[in-house]
Amino acid sequence: MTARPLVTAPAGAAPGRMLAHPAPADIRLTDVLHALSDPVRLTVVRALAGARTELTCSDVPLPVTKSTTTHHYRVLREAGVITQIYRGTSKMNALRRDDLDRLFPGLLDSVLAAADAQARRMGER
Amino acid sequence: MTARPLVTAPAGAAPGRMLAHPAPADIRLTDVLHALSDPVRLTVVRALAGARTELTCSDVPLPVTKSTTTHHYRVLREAGVITQIYRGTSKMNALRRDDLDRLFPGLLDSVLAAADAQARRMGER
Repeated sequence: MTARPLVTAPAGAAPGRMLAHPAPADIRLTDVLHALSDPVRLTVVRALAGARTELTCSDVPLPVTKSTTTHHYRVLREAGVITQIYRGTSKMNALRRDDLDRLFPGLLDSVLAAADAQARRMGER
Repeated sequence: MTARPLVTAPAGAAPGRMLAHPAPADIRLTDVLHALSDPVRLTVVRALAGARTELTCSDVPLPVTKSTTTHHYRVLREAGVITQIYRGTSKMNALRRDDLDRLFPGLLDSVLAAADAQARRMGER
């Protein structure tokens, strides 16, 4: 991932604790694909897509340590796949579906459908 | 990428020099996304998609050394994105479009469309 200017958190973030997010124009397809190419991160994205709302990290059960979890969420945020916004003491995660759909129409939906199809296939085997 | 059984080359390969390819049932979404998440590999995939036929490695100009080129093609082959088949002394590369479309409908097309859109956007900036 190349270094690019990062904007601060989107509207709605609590003042004072803002994490860096790429502006839509700085989101790169290869970074998004890399972010989605890890099973743990894909689990997070599927959970956020299914929830259709903000979730905390602990809302999504993952088979990894807390520091590894933090790492995976950071990769997703820095690639432009999710927002991470502090609301009070909670860090809330959400899919950047509008940005991704505008930049790469159909991509997120096809990845989510592919993940569903594979999960069904693996379950059947 | 986890180790999985690899099948030998698809039909049409010259006998004696077969490279390992994953069977369709062993192609994993995260491996495919990882293979597509590199700019050089994405260039190869776009070239193969545009050509709609087999190409040699030297048919696709890349800004990397020959050994790096070989590495990138191997990653694409082992992920199930391309076939690499020796025909006489030439190693011919082709997209596994039918396999990918069957496993992950719409995924390859949306990635190719996203890559085109991004290239246009970057050219315009």
